[in-house]
Amino acid sequence: MDSPSDANEKKEKIGRYPFMAEPFQVDFCGRLPVPILGNQLLNAADFHSKERGFGIPTLQRENRTWVLSRLAVEIREMPRQYESYTVETWIEGIFRSFTSRNFCVCGSDGRIFAYARSVWAMIDLASRKAIDLVPLYGADFSGYLCPEKPCPIGKPGRIAVKDAAEVLTLRPAYSDIDINGHFNSIKYIEHVLDLFPPDRYRTSRVRRFEMAYMAESYPGDELAFRMEKTGEEAYNVEIRKNSSEAVCRCRVEFDGKA
Amino acid sequence: MDSPSDANEKKEKIGRYPFMAEPFQVDFCGRLPVPILGNQLLNAADFHSKERGFGIPTLQRENRTWVLSRLAVEIREMPRQYESYTVETWIEGIFRSFTSRNFCVCGSDGRIFAYARSVWAMIDLASRKAIDLVPLYGADFSGYLCPEKPCPIGKPGRIAVKDAAEVLTLRPAYSDIDINGHFNSIKYIEHVLDLFPPDRYRTSRVRRFEMAYMAESYPGDELAFRMEKTGEEAYNVEIRKNSSEAVCRCRVEFDGKA
Repeated sequence: MDSPSDANEKKEKIGRYPFMAEPFQVDFCGRLPVPILGNQLLNAADFHSKERGFGIPTLQRENRTWVLSRLAVEIREMPRQYESYTVETWIEGIFRSFTSRNFCVCGSDGRIFAYARSVWAMIDLASRKAIDLVPLYGADFSGYLCPEKPCPIGKPGRIAVKDAAEVLTLRPAYSDIDINGHFNSIKYIEHVLDLFPPDRYRTSRVRRFEMAYMAESYPGDELAFRMEKTGEEAYNVEIRKNSSEAVCRCRVEFDGKA
Repeated sequence: MDSPSDANEKKEKIGRYPFMAEPFQVDFCGRLPVPILGNQLLNAADFHSKERGFGIPTLQRENRTWVLSRLAVEIREMPRQYESYTVETWIEGIFRSFTSRNFCVCGSDGRIFAYARSVWAMIDLASRKAIDLVPLYGADFSGYLCPEKPCPIGKPGRIAVKDAAEVLTLRPAYSDIDINGHFNSIKYIEHVLDLFPPDRYRTSRVRRFEMAYMAESYPGDELAFRMEKTGEEAYNVEIRKNSSEAVCRCRVEFDGKA
């Protein structure tokens, strides 16, 4: 079902979507958990692109879809139980095979909760190959580019995983699988944060979280999680499927106060 | 943070709350999963009681809270990706130590997606003992009782688990724990449905789901899941902590068509 606004009528460059930290979804500190925020970032990206005529439902009719390639989230503080927040999202740039979309998560009083950066590729659903975006949308992305809006956090970088120890293996469960039959992008984040004992979150909070999505995984795959400590409060995690291909890598940085 | 409407101004007996099957939360059949619907039922219950002056934030100031004791959901069909649905909720009855709250999940065209029944106790946060509701709210629950609204599904019944085999053990992870420091009611449902291989959901769907919450579990507990087949398409599951106390029991009935 497309919303009536899934048409190419001219819209503001920046989309703004209101959400609330739902009572039964906050963590034991009473704060919005990172995976729930991640899901709302993806919702905001989806609503913004749908309203401007290049959303997933439109693309699917043309046998194409958006694929999330990178995500970096930097958190100042998380909304508390019942607290409202707005996810602002806009397109920063367009390149041959990917586009960068940024986010600002703010409160009704203008307080900044978090910033995020994401990188998306468009693929052909038959060949699974990346599509050149410039001929499709033009270098100005139909006038929706908004590089002037600041997003004062570092871009997602290369995540190297060398001397990591295996800390978990699992097979995708029903709740892990998304509508495309792949492991859900957000569920990877949930599993990675669950590698740390719950008590860790009493004394520290996630300051920055970064994901690099590299390959798809499916029901039946065996996923192995390997983790290494790379700094006082920083960890890199690599997830490989079936003892071979890396499906994603991520980096978690904690802040030593809750 | 309480909403401005967390006051005892007179409201309709039936609360109606709109939701949407979010794009990245639907399952690989493109349908709303049972745990996500379960979370929205709890949200609706929370909003309804808050707006009428007996919500959890109000109770917490009086050192009390609501505790979910039973939940039964019967599903005709689940909303599809992007589909809007409304959760209607109302109080059916009030008894000495519990109250029953029902739900109807319907589409904008009046189509019924699901009905649900729930049973809640109110406990004193210090003694953890149930509080007698009748002196507190009167036998008519301040005029909010609505037994005349139909909820044409069976009440949650007794769930017996006899010759069950252990199918999973786990320790609560960060994402399993709610704001009270207990295992999240909805996360139990997710773990139980994940006991079945993903392929099961290609050929069948959950027709009825029932939970009996009996005790609380915490980080550090070891939870053992035991399951038995009780009919052609029916399964009972019991979750015990630390090889002793049962924390919850549930019953899943599938329908042999997706």
